[in-house]
Amino acid sequence: MTAVIDFYFDFSSPYGYLAAQRIEALASTHGRRVDWHPVLLGVIFKETGAVPLTQVPIKGDYSRRDMVRSARYHGIDDFRMPSRFPIPTQAAARIVLALKAEDVALSTRVAKALYRAYFAEDVDISDADAAADIASGAGADRDRARAAVDDPAVKDALRDEVARAVARGVCGSPFFIVDGEPFWGLDRLPQLDRWLASGPY
Amino acid sequence: MTAVIDFYFDFSSPYGYLAAQRIEALASTHGRRVDWHPVLLGVIFKETGAVPLTQVPIKGDYSRRDMVRSARYHGIDDFRMPSRFPIPTQAAARIVLALKAEDVALSTRVAKALYRAYFAEDVDISDADAAADIASGAGADRDRARAAVDDPAVKDALRDEVARAVARGVCGSPFFIVDGEPFWGLDRLPQLDRWLASGPY
Repeated sequence: MTAVIDFYFDFSSPYGYLAAQRIEALASTHGRRVDWHPVLLGVIFKETGAVPLTQVPIKGDYSRRDMVRSARYHGIDDFRMPSRFPIPTQAAARIVLALKAEDVALSTRVAKALYRAYFAEDVDISDADAAADIASGAGADRDRARAAVDDPAVKDALRDEVARAVARGVCGSPFFIVDGEPFWGLDRLPQLDRWLASGPY
Repeated sequence: MTAVIDFYFDFSSPYGYLAAQRIEALASTHGRRVDWHPVLLGVIFKETGAVPLTQVPIKGDYSRRDMVRSARYHGIDDFRMPSRFPIPTQAAARIVLALKAEDVALSTRVAKALYRAYFAEDVDISDADAAADIASGAGADRDRARAAVDDPAVKDALRDEVARAVARGVCGSPFFIVDGEPFWGLDRLPQLDRWLASGPY
């Protein structure tokens, strides 16, 4: 059994999107599988007292500049800040979580498609119908995906998933946990890479 | 004339200390000089609404772990979290700023010595006498250094320096500005390095 890299992300997180473009390649270099966990930063921010970075005085301007520069630095050419930002991400997260219970590979494909739709194609995936369309384009059953958004059991499952993330110390997006070691941020991928290559340091 | 790298830091910033161990080598690779600017995060945090990272729920635990791991990752073996943290850094900042008006090279040596005293030798440099002792050990006149801490003109100069930093968008420590481009954080040194190597990207 291959130990996993737990990858926590919010669909409205620019650095999460950029990390999502890199984590699979990094994982496969080390023979690891990535477990994609959509979470809700709004809930996590209530625990940490944070507000969205782009809305903070001074840091907001810096972070918008840093996001597009970081995309260029990492060679991710399709990134652009969506016209509506940030957005609620319950719809996308519920679709991915519902699919995950049935077909992990499909769920991951749908997660990537949703992320790309928002951060590369400027699709507002907070809209349940738009999110279901994207899921369908990635191979999911459209009606099944659309129904997941309003399904009380899926809502509960997402609430539990976010609570588990908070309990594990997830304080932002992207956030990775490998063999019990936490790594927060796109900029921690080099440290994560070294951890996987050489073990604890 | 060589264009400078403006390096803004607070003497109580762990990531600032780690960056201080790396920035001179990075700069010299690109034929640049580093201009060391001690600032006060407390003042900057009033602008951004931030609180010290280690005091934030969940993030606090993560950040303490990340600080020591980041030190090991960068091969900075002498780093350890001081027993008193964070501390007021006016005394150290005023000494460095006063010296800078007379002898830039000496001021930089003293800045490095103060940083090392706090983060490697657990000296509480918020104490004006302790800070003056460290400055003296790095080659400064002890009485001159000690007097700077209470000098109204130096206090004003530091206040102005911090205000200028805020006006330039400095929102944390370490923070670098190169040819008008801002870089925030130890983890942005690779992006800064590429900027210096290949120009804007």
